Amino acid sequence: MSRTISEIASYLGLPFQGDGDTKVDKVSSWEIADASSLIYIENKEMAAQFPRTIRVACAIVMAGSEPVGTNTIISEKPKLDFARAASLLQPSRPAMGLRHSSAIIAASADVDDSVNIGPLVAIGPHARVRRGCILHAGVVVGEGCVLGEECILYPNVILYPQVEIGNRTILHAGVVVGSDGFGYVFDGAAHIKFPQVGTVLIEDDVEIGANSTIDRGSLGVTRIGAGTKIDNLVQVAHNVQIGKGVVIAAQTGISGSTIIEDYVVIGGQVGFGDHAHVQKGVVIGSKAGVLPGKILRSGETYWGIPVRPLSEFKRLNALFGRLPQMKEEISALKEKVTSLQAALQKLESE
Amino acid sequence: MSRTISEIASYLGLPFQGDGDTKVDKVSSWEIADASSLIYIENKEMAAQFPRTIRVACAIVMAGSEPVGTNTIISEKPKLDFARAASLLQPSRPAMGLRHSSAIIAASADVDDSVNIGPLVAIGPHARVRRGCILHAGVVVGEGCVLGEECILYPNVILYPQVEIGNRTILHAGVVVGSDGFGYVFDGAAHIKFPQVGTVLIEDDVEIGANSTIDRGSLGVTRIGAGTKIDNLVQVAHNVQIGKGVVIAAQTGISGSTIIEDYVVIGGQVGFGDHAHVQKGVVIGSKAGVLPGKILRSGETYWGIPVRPLSEFKRLNALFGRLPQMKEEISALKEKVTSLQAALQKLESE
Amino acid sequence: MSRTISEIASYLGLPFQGDGDTKVDKVSSWEIADASSLIYIENKEMAAQFPRTIRVACAIVMAGSEPVGTNTIISEKPKLDFARAASLLQPSRPAMGLRHSSAIIAASADVDDSVNIGPLVAIGPHARVRRGCILHAGVVVGEGCVLGEECILYPNVILYPQVEIGNRTILHAGVVVGSDGFGYVFDGAAHIKFPQVGTVLIEDDVEIGANSTIDRGSLGVTRIGAGTKIDNLVQVAHNVQIGKGVVIAAQTGISGSTIIEDYVVIGGQVGFGDHAHVQKGVVIGSKAGVLPGKILRSGETYWGIPVRPLSEFKRLNALFGRLPQMKEEISALKEKVTSLQAALQKLESE
Repeated sequence: MSRTISEIASYLGLPFQGDGDTKVDKVSSWEIADASSLIYIENKEMAAQFPRTIRVACAIVMAGSEPVGTNTIISEKPKLDFARAASLLQPSRPAMGLRHSSAIIAASADVDDSVNIGPLVAIGPHARVRRGCILHAGVVVGEGCVLGEECILYPNVILYPQVEIGNRTILHAGVVVGSDGFGYVFDGAAHIKFPQVGTVLIEDDVEIGANSTIDRGSLGVTRIGAGTKIDNLVQVAHNVQIGKGVVIAAQTGISGSTIIEDYVVIGGQVGFGDHAHVQKGVVIGSKAGVLPGKILRSGETYWGIPVRPLSEFKRLNALFGRLPQMKEEISALKEKVTSLQAALQKLESE
Repeated sequence: MSRTISEIASYLGLPFQGDGDTKVDKVSSWEIADASSLIYIENKEMAAQFPRTIRVACAIVMAGSEPVGTNTIISEKPKLDFARAASLLQPSRPAMGLRHSSAIIAASADVDDSVNIGPLVAIGPHARVRRGCILHAGVVVGEGCVLGEECILYPNVILYPQVEIGNRTILHAGVVVGSDGFGYVFDGAAHIKFPQVGTVLIEDDVEIGANSTIDRGSLGVTRIGAGTKIDNLVQVAHNVQIGKGVVIAAQTGISGSTIIEDYVVIGGQVGFGDHAHVQKGVVIGSKAGVLPGKILRSGETYWGIPVRPLSEFKRLNALFGRLPQMKEEISALKEKVTSLQAALQKLESE
Repeated sequence: MSRTISEIASYLGLPFQGDGDTKVDKVSSWEIADASSLIYIENKEMAAQFPRTIRVACAIVMAGSEPVGTNTIISEKPKLDFARAASLLQPSRPAMGLRHSSAIIAASADVDDSVNIGPLVAIGPHARVRRGCILHAGVVVGEGCVLGEECILYPNVILYPQVEIGNRTILHAGVVVGSDGFGYVFDGAAHIKFPQVGTVLIEDDVEIGANSTIDRGSLGVTRIGAGTKIDNLVQVAHNVQIGKGVVIAAQTGISGSTIIEDYVVIGGQVGFGDHAHVQKGVVIGSKAGVLPGKILRSGETYWGIPVRPLSEFKRLNALFGRLPQMKEEISALKEKVTSLQAALQKLESE
């Protein structure tokens, strides 16, 4: 969608410099920008590297970093305002009530007229899909599921029955929500399935990456709080409670009943034992391992397997790298002590 | 399905106390239980915490832990009997021969009349699907596959051709069985695909979690033994042999030709090199790494990367945490030895 | 497809011994070989173990390792030539222009007549699918995607819009290509989505394993070079650049903007921080962790979390296992030093 610089600046509530009538068509990185691109220059270091030969429609920059001869919008947070401008320039297409004839919609399902339904979608009995949702090809919405307004379900998203999802939540291709949790009781010969009859509640503005899996509660609810963002191939087990605004990078796995409070930030390939408790705002580095039942305290950054506070882990890791020197120092000490003993014995015997 | 307490007790072969005619509708956890719920109290610790204000239809408890004023079924293993009761109270719906008109079934496929086939299912030529199976929306059964009785394939399960599955096996949404293994021979310039023309055999009563992947044998068979339970996002490579009653938690990966014997228990995010051999009953902690060709001995619990016996690993991990002290001790020793040397030299020169 | 030994030898450009007219039907491993099987014996160790009772149609062996009484093709690289012979004996079935009537093909899509299209496939507007491609059941090809010649997309592969794929590339079931990358800018209260409007380019002869996920570039391109092979459940984040002939084992995750040069070999469950740079030919052991921004140098093998050169890591890991002895040595030294001090004091006071 084409916009003038003055329209974008007005949308962002920011001042601009240069020709406000210049048209902007798209957001770009420097490397592929052209005369219709909006770019951003995050800070002075980036500004110093900005190639003078690049011609763009407009750059979002901090005051004092304006490149010569370029139209600019002045911002204190260029990357954030660039992201905001992108949603104006390249908005996702809204639902327009398009329903592909190949979609299978149960008679008892309650689907708003505005909803887009792609080819080969299956919507089960008593499901409710609210205004503005987009269900891409091959999506399966189980019996009794509820989707809030303006959700986007990319191809082949699977919702097991009774899953509830808030507004503006985005589920990427292959995401599975509501599968049975992994719970058995061993009877001495076989693993007897523990009931997995709970549900999943995903709140507003959540985004979940491709092929991630969210198990239903065994007896209760697996919950993902508003504004939480989850990357690809992440596993969320039964009864896990994830707060608001949490960020979880790819391939992380969270075991049953673990609690992640608001605004926690979790790297990739992290593993959580069951019944762990991560307090508000904790940061956990990639590949870390959190033991079952462990409590991670607010205000701290953690890393390692098992996790330790970051400063401690860094020190230990540095010392790990110095093990050869420590071994040599011990050997040298042994030699010195042996010769001291000999010298002392000699003195004593004199 | 509503049952009386006496019916449930009779099904479990256990005695009850209180009003046997009370109706029970569902299994619940304490938090959400109501007057129609069956709950369980696993042990005295749980019994001590049981809130007296909760009103439930019935609690399964150990003798001596009965809460006052509550109908009870007396069990030596309350959690196990609760799981058993759940299968009576909330059984999964049996197949009733329902076939959605949108399903695509090859003319040469042999599908029992009792099988439920959801919308948009595709069953390939010469496939056989036996009595009581349920194939949910979007399932793909490849050419020549065989499914035993009463299997449940959740939405979008993919079976490549020639995969064989036993009775009562459950595959969750997005599971892929029979994909090509990862094998190439480098010819000096390119990676030439090694043939991946074997099969997969999954025995009875197996359950596999959402989006897990099971590769076919390269020339032979990838095998998963009866009663084995596999969590979400697990990778099983070509020619892997998994025994009976094995438990494998989420995101674990098992490389080619590795052998896992019966009743092994494997945590989440564990990795196995190829041709490893895990003997019967071994327990492996989460995030562990097993080197290629490694043999893990029965009777042992393992942890760490690479794995070590648990007691050894715990000791090493504790010492890892004491590296700063060790470093200080070495420094202190150096100082003392230096002053000893000086004192000794002084003595010698006197 | 049945072939004579002389036909196979001629195809491979290799000499044979024995009856060149013997028919060969299939490739097999020793364990399941029969009189119509082609097998291979890689080296003298394998030859020494070859059971004399096995009857096969033909064995590919090194000169000097021929089993008595067996037809042989003589090769310097038996496993490689066996893999080549397999593509002659058991070629994948070519596309024959079969289109299932249930497939949904946009009117504006440009699909070559030779392409096989399975049941319940969805091809979006303006997509181009070139000669000889095979799209299995449930595949979704997004708007504007381009597929080169003779690609195979197994069931339920999802291509988001604008993804471009070269020739002879194989995507296994459940692979997702072009999903949004994981990028947000925190505005102090919420995570604002950074635009994910780039694309994915996958070159010729790439193979990607089941349920792996390849995110689209945020503003630029995520690229996977020709001949690269990727295993199951691998995560490739936005803007990652992977060179030619790279091998990546299962469950590895590569964070945003990381560069992997040609012919790098990566084990399973490896994790890469963002903006790492792995130079040509580097080998990285399973479960390794590469820090953000880290440069791994050509000619080196790496292992550990965080990665170190393999020889260094092995030495450190051995010393880690000797921590108890180091602790004891320090304790013994302390005792000796204490008694030395005492003895010296005694001498001094004399």
